[in-house]
Amino acid sequence: MARQQRIACLLAEDFEDVEFRAPYDALVRAGYEVDVIGAEEGATLEGKRGDEEVQVDRSIDDASPEAYDALFIPGGFSPDHLRADARFVRFTRDFHELRRPIATLCHGPQLLLSADVLDEHRLTAWKTVQDDLRHAGVDVVDEPVVRDGMLVTSRQPDDLGQFIPAMLELLEGAAVQGRGAASEVT
Amino acid sequence: MARQQRIACLLAEDFEDVEFRAPYDALVRAGYEVDVIGAEEGATLEGKRGDEEVQVDRSIDDASPEAYDALFIPGGFSPDHLRADARFVRFTRDFHELRRPIATLCHGPQLLLSADVLDEHRLTAWKTVQDDLRHAGVDVVDEPVVRDGMLVTSRQPDDLGQFIPAMLELLEGAAVQGRGAASEVT
Repeated sequence: MARQQRIACLLAEDFEDVEFRAPYDALVRAGYEVDVIGAEEGATLEGKRGDEEVQVDRSIDDASPEAYDALFIPGGFSPDHLRADARFVRFTRDFHELRRPIATLCHGPQLLLSADVLDEHRLTAWKTVQDDLRHAGVDVVDEPVVRDGMLVTSRQPDDLGQFIPAMLELLEGAAVQGRGAASEVT
Repeated sequence: MARQQRIACLLAEDFEDVEFRAPYDALVRAGYEVDVIGAEEGATLEGKRGDEEVQVDRSIDDASPEAYDALFIPGGFSPDHLRADARFVRFTRDFHELRRPIATLCHGPQLLLSADVLDEHRLTAWKTVQDDLRHAGVDVVDEPVVRDGMLVTSRQPDDLGQFIPAMLELLEGAAVQGRGAASEVT
């Protein structure tokens, strides 16, 4: 049996509550192990609407990109806090280099922009972040969900119904590919 | 005697409390009339730290750029809310065309970026917004206060001690210039 896939979820305070909760629960239900990675292990992070309180499973100082099969970045103002901290920017850049799945929505692409990994991607984001992406010369579109290679993005909470299935499909496809590669080696 | 100068302050919820309060009080003490312009007249806006509650003096629907001598945009997450609303983006763009003073700090330049008015300016901003400005090809520097023509900018609350005097100096200079022009016409 294949080992359980691990997902890194980068999180800071002021996240958009439902953009954490709904994808997180969907990932856990689908059998993934999700590590909430924050600035400080054990700290409690509150969503911007006060609906969710989330405990940090692991400090960014103890998190290695190689240990994770995918990266999930919820929106809200959490990504702007994260990209103010060089450790999260570096984690994101290093993870992107592994060519493994990244799923993010709303303000999440701000972290990808600060990590300078968007040159080759087509994506969407929250409408104000679309402005920044457009100004940066990134290929950005205003659609509910955009799948481009190993990157899946959405704009806002209303898009979650399309974002979650697209994220799960991307993860499953990458996992099958990974298992296939492993079989060939055996 | 010259008429009282009027300042437009564009504001939405989640503003950085002290970045509204300290410059606002300094402007009022210096004799300026400051109109807080928001989405809805009479609405109460709360700062992101819960320290300040501010009542909206005038709806953006009733605000004309020509009626104001200067524009002040506090930081925090307020600017990202404002730039999601085309009326504030249009007000900012139209105000900029008048070549009157603009003072902003922290996330405030996000609104200037969405209004597409930064091509010709040198400025600073909150460090994560500096990323966006740099990606957009804007001339951005990491300094406590930057004065460039009719634009004065700072990075964060720590810079308020330099931001406020620079803002007042810019306004006074522009007012003197304006009175000079008015005298010439008379």
